[in-house]
Amino acid sequence: MTKSNDPLVIFTPSGKRGNFPKGTPILTAARKLGVDLDSVCGGRGICSKCQVQPSYGEFAKHGVTVADDALSDWNAVEERYKSKRGMLDGRRLGCQATVQGDAVIDVPPESQVHRQVVRKRAEARDITMNPSTKLFYVEVREPDMHDPSGDLERLVAALRNDWDLPELEVDFSVLATLQPKLRKGEWKVTCAVHLGDDYVSPRITHVWSGYYEGSIYGMAVDIGSTTIAAHLCDLQSGEVIESNGIMNPQIRFGEDLMSRVSYSMMNAGGAAEMTTAVRTGIKELFTDISNTSGIDLNLVMDAVFVCNPVMHHLFLGIDPFELGQAPFALATSDAVSTRAKNLDLNIHPAARIYLLPCIAGHVGADAAAVTLSEAPDKSEDLVLLVDVGTNAEIQLGNKDKVLACSSPTGPAFEGAQISSGQRAAPGAIERAEIDPTTKEPRFRVIGSDLWSDEDGFADSILSSGITGICGSGIIEMVAEMRIAGIVDGPGLIGSPEQAGTERCFLDGRTHSYLVYDGTADGGPKITVTNRDIREIQMAKAALYSGARLLMDKFEVDTVDRIVLAGAFGAHISPKHAMVLGMIPDCPLDKVTSAGNAAGTGARIALLNTEARSEIEETVRKIHKVETAIEPRFQEHFVNASAIPNSVEKFPILETVVTLPDVNFNTGGDTDGGGRRRRRRG
Amino acid sequence: MTKSNDPLVIFTPSGKRGNFPKGTPILTAARKLGVDLDSVCGGRGICSKCQVQPSYGEFAKHGVTVADDALSDWNAVEERYKSKRGMLDGRRLGCQATVQGDAVIDVPPESQVHRQVVRKRAEARDITMNPSTKLFYVEVREPDMHDPSGDLERLVAALRNDWDLPELEVDFSVLATLQPKLRKGEWKVTCAVHLGDDYVSPRITHVWSGYYEGSIYGMAVDIGSTTIAAHLCDLQSGEVIESNGIMNPQIRFGEDLMSRVSYSMMNAGGAAEMTTAVRTGIKELFTDISNTSGIDLNLVMDAVFVCNPVMHHLFLGIDPFELGQAPFALATSDAVSTRAKNLDLNIHPAARIYLLPCIAGHVGADAAAVTLSEAPDKSEDLVLLVDVGTNAEIQLGNKDKVLACSSPTGPAFEGAQISSGQRAAPGAIERAEIDPTTKEPRFRVIGSDLWSDEDGFADSILSSGITGICGSGIIEMVAEMRIAGIVDGPGLIGSPEQAGTERCFLDGRTHSYLVYDGTADGGPKITVTNRDIREIQMAKAALYSGARLLMDKFEVDTVDRIVLAGAFGAHISPKHAMVLGMIPDCPLDKVTSAGNAAGTGARIALLNTEARSEIEETVRKIHKVETAIEPRFQEHFVNASAIPNSVEKFPILETVVTLPDVNFNTGGDTDGGGRRRRRRG
Repeated sequence: MTKSNDPLVIFTPSGKRGNFPKGTPILTAARKLGVDLDSVCGGRGICSKCQVQPSYGEFAKHGVTVADDALSDWNAVEERYKSKRGMLDGRRLGCQATVQGDAVIDVPPESQVHRQVVRKRAEARDITMNPSTKLFYVEVREPDMHDPSGDLERLVAALRNDWDLPELEVDFSVLATLQPKLRKGEWKVTCAVHLGDDYVSPRITHVWSGYYEGSIYGMAVDIGSTTIAAHLCDLQSGEVIESNGIMNPQIRFGEDLMSRVSYSMMNAGGAAEMTTAVRTGIKELFTDISNTSGIDLNLVMDAVFVCNPVMHHLFLGIDPFELGQAPFALATSDAVSTRAKNLDLNIHPAARIYLLPCIAGHVGADAAAVTLSEAPDKSEDLVLLVDVGTNAEIQLGNKDKVLACSSPTGPAFEGAQISSGQRAAPGAIERAEIDPTTKEPRFRVIGSDLWSDEDGFADSILSSGITGICGSGIIEMVAEMRIAGIVDGPGLIGSPEQAGTERCFLDGRTHSYLVYDGTADGGPKITVTNRDIREIQMAKAALYSGARLLMDKFEVDTVDRIVLAGAFGAHISPKHAMVLGMIPDCPLDKVTSAGNAAGTGARIALLNTEARSEIEETVRKIHKVETAIEPRFQEHFVNASAIPNSVEKFPILETVVTLPDVNFNTGGDTDGGGRRRRRRG
Repeated sequence: MTKSNDPLVIFTPSGKRGNFPKGTPILTAARKLGVDLDSVCGGRGICSKCQVQPSYGEFAKHGVTVADDALSDWNAVEERYKSKRGMLDGRRLGCQATVQGDAVIDVPPESQVHRQVVRKRAEARDITMNPSTKLFYVEVREPDMHDPSGDLERLVAALRNDWDLPELEVDFSVLATLQPKLRKGEWKVTCAVHLGDDYVSPRITHVWSGYYEGSIYGMAVDIGSTTIAAHLCDLQSGEVIESNGIMNPQIRFGEDLMSRVSYSMMNAGGAAEMTTAVRTGIKELFTDISNTSGIDLNLVMDAVFVCNPVMHHLFLGIDPFELGQAPFALATSDAVSTRAKNLDLNIHPAARIYLLPCIAGHVGADAAAVTLSEAPDKSEDLVLLVDVGTNAEIQLGNKDKVLACSSPTGPAFEGAQISSGQRAAPGAIERAEIDPTTKEPRFRVIGSDLWSDEDGFADSILSSGITGICGSGIIEMVAEMRIAGIVDGPGLIGSPEQAGTERCFLDGRTHSYLVYDGTADGGPKITVTNRDIREIQMAKAALYSGARLLMDKFEVDTVDRIVLAGAFGAHISPKHAMVLGMIPDCPLDKVTSAGNAAGTGARIALLNTEARSEIEETVRKIHKVETAIEPRFQEHFVNASAIPNSVEKFPILETVVTLPDVNFNTGGDTDGGGRRRRRRG
């Protein structure tokens, strides 16, 4: 049908080109060439998704000259659309403008189906939009007594004919309202179609009468042991419309995961109670997000959940009993795909729910989401990926191989089990420095941008006061105490004489360091006790040992870069983490934070269904290392409990931190002065 | 691996043969040859489903001699099985007995997977067992910390390895209890696996710890406007375990379908009310069946429903509004497959629900089930298939072409709108004869085997009395009145003088015929009024006109045979039906009853999933004729209201029925004496 003397149409940025007879709509030409040009209404001039930007003049690069009359005249449909909804000058509707001569047509990003959602971090890959559910507008043949067929069957035929969709199934919830909707729309409807995946065949999940102008949405949810965070995303643009979080209501059954597993063991129906609690929490969070954003939850057609294995099981209604004991068997490790209704969620009943696969009994779908977000499996250099929480999930790898393990850091890094510890909230000390000479501390408190020795600090914290130390604060404080010679390598706080400061005081059988005394104003006395040091030592030893174990398995002694994931990871100072020996040595500028990488991974899986098959494949290939049965892990752990005695160099930053070679041990109550394994070479 | 000098194994009845090395288990040989030999435990000597019957001696037909030691010795597993459960002498377990020499092995019917379920009627095809859900016993690899994988994934792997099953999905309901079940069974479980169809991929729907000795079941349900009937079937043997029926609780919303459609039009929420009513009724029926049979409804893993379009929609929760008016558009005409939970049924939540396709807006899934049972599309001769009810569904066809239509017969054939009419229940007159000379009636009553003029009749009906006339009774009565000259061709009852009996009496402006007067004993006076004759005339005219219309479309004047379907069809006397002109002329011995063909069709679809694709394909090919818009239908209807005046011959039976050529018309209130179209040639 097309001949070489037909006009040439070149699409940018794809560069796809072809000859088309005069009168061919641009949208038709784009489809025939496989150019990524969106359309919901199928070329009926209703949806305006197919906007294109023609260019005129000479294009030496393409070897064409585009005349002013290369396209058909601006028409009434375009004029109506532009006057009612607005359209940039120079833009045309691809379904209205037809080819009249050689043309160069740019498809702007917003007109592409597989548009990119830009991620802010420099090293992060952009997200390609490829959502599970898309909108399609169709006009359906009316029923005919001479050729009886169901309304649904004629709808499916229209979707097949107009959109090349396969023979679609229909979600059961659609059936009841299909007939009145078709008639109200005078046989014109917009369908939300789930395009199918490994779990379900393609199906119609919702029908609107006429052309539906709105969008459809998805939720990306990170169910943490402590908090649940959800992002409401537009499934057409990829935009995050609203993010919000709540405390996980399961906290009343136990602060950490193992206490929740215990609760289910000790209480008949305990697991079911916790399942109800977490689902109720999620529903409340969704309602909050709906109220704030004004988006009806019935428009949420897809949701992706990431969580650790215990949360994963409890959310799905599975008793986590087996996760509390060796061999830590998951009920299911593969990705789970189900219907919102099965989980009693308050989004569209036909919405699909997708949980990323779990990597192992201790390394969950949240770790898989971090993998998806940070893509160690696609990294050219060797990356150590650490998601710090009550359990640290650690991954080490590059494009050749990825190893993963989990390490039981305990809750110290989250401020729990620390004498003055608290969660990261206004009033919490989050940053700390100690003058190596005077041994005097200064700090910053969440809610204020000022350091405690700066003018106006007291006023800046009036509303919260100073209430405690959060996870990042205790890490910095202990590291600074070590740098200032207040704590020795084995982890003992010196006496006032040994440490050279009256802030050290005898506190039971060991010494504590006074950070802040607010008692005069009715406030707290904030100290770091020797027991706090121990807790941090145990936590950091666990984290370090997990990383070292993976390095052993990978047969390397160094890593090229370290990525700290998780909300907590975003607040850790790499320098202090390295002083403490939480993470292996690495050039400081090669230590970055990925923020909430698990949440980002959930968002990627939500917006790009191909990423789901991809992460499932990746997770199958990840080599899992179980710390509990690795003798090397125990060995590393024992060796890693001390805080380094020696000089640390951060050559890239030209920073040299000299740790005083002190030892306050007076016998009996240290961890034995075990030495951390040093980096070779 | 096999060589021609290896022993030869011949299986009967299939005749499949092959050489196998000594020591090959019979079950293995059968599988390699594709012989249909059942096994649930996969050859572990647990299930005994693979029982075979070896034969010994010379088999000239097969050219082999089977020595006494052709098979391995009777072993301990077989002995234990036989002593504990019993096994016929001579039988062997196919998984235990191994090939030692040339052998002839018979697979008895009960050891075949695709065994035949024998249908009683001579012309009916047997049902090949091929249920949607089968049982598989497997031993699952235990979890291993060194190679972590979910329990489910290891179960799926075992099913794949042992049974060549594809990568199975799992019903969401299985997940919650999988872990304790695997451990309780010490990693041995029996799985119910739905083998997948056009709607769902293969999936595990239930798991039992260890080897599950029981069976699994299915329900075949026929939702009629008046009654709901269900058959509980064993999905392994095909046996009907229990059948039961209840009145459709929707009757309180209207006796016939159109009054229920009206109810939904006139009452907000009326359709939902009726949906609840029918589902509640079905649940009660299922509970009854479970109570009587002792079968737990959680073992019901599949269910097939057939019903007319209005019931179909109401059962699925779709307002039948559109079915009440032209163009009678169905919400969906294709088969519907969904999960029991979506319909709030009280069987296994993962059970699949299958509704046969509807043929047209008035010809429902029940008609499709009749098609499946009676297979007009496979018939060599031309068959007219009539399912008589409030609507008669009529099909005409042979292997070349099938036509279908629905005809609004009204409820007269069910005893409704008849002055002394009642449903078929004890006390109802169901058979009638009138002496052509004395004009005296005799009759039989449901509940007694005696005619009313036989000795002991009065005693035999003591418990019920004589209460009215049911559908088959009124048909015989009117036909006998016509034969006896009490009614004339146009349908008028004669005066005592005209009819020659004092049983005729003036009853308003027309005459009635006294059948039975029980008033002396406080019983009813049972009469046939002229209005009753009219009702029957209208009903039979509708039925006949529908059949004639299809014959016109088929361009034939005669049919080779007639099948009467439906509970009512089973009770109609073909002779009387033909006297009345309900059905076209046909040799009497070519008129048969198919009983509850719709229920049988449901049972076929339940037991043989291939039959589902088959009937879907058949229904697509059926040519639908809409009586409401066919002028020929009205024409036939007008012509068919009279009762034939002439002689009817039933040559095969050598029966001649002479109808008196009387005409009692005294002007004005008949249907005009239209003549029924006669059979030509």
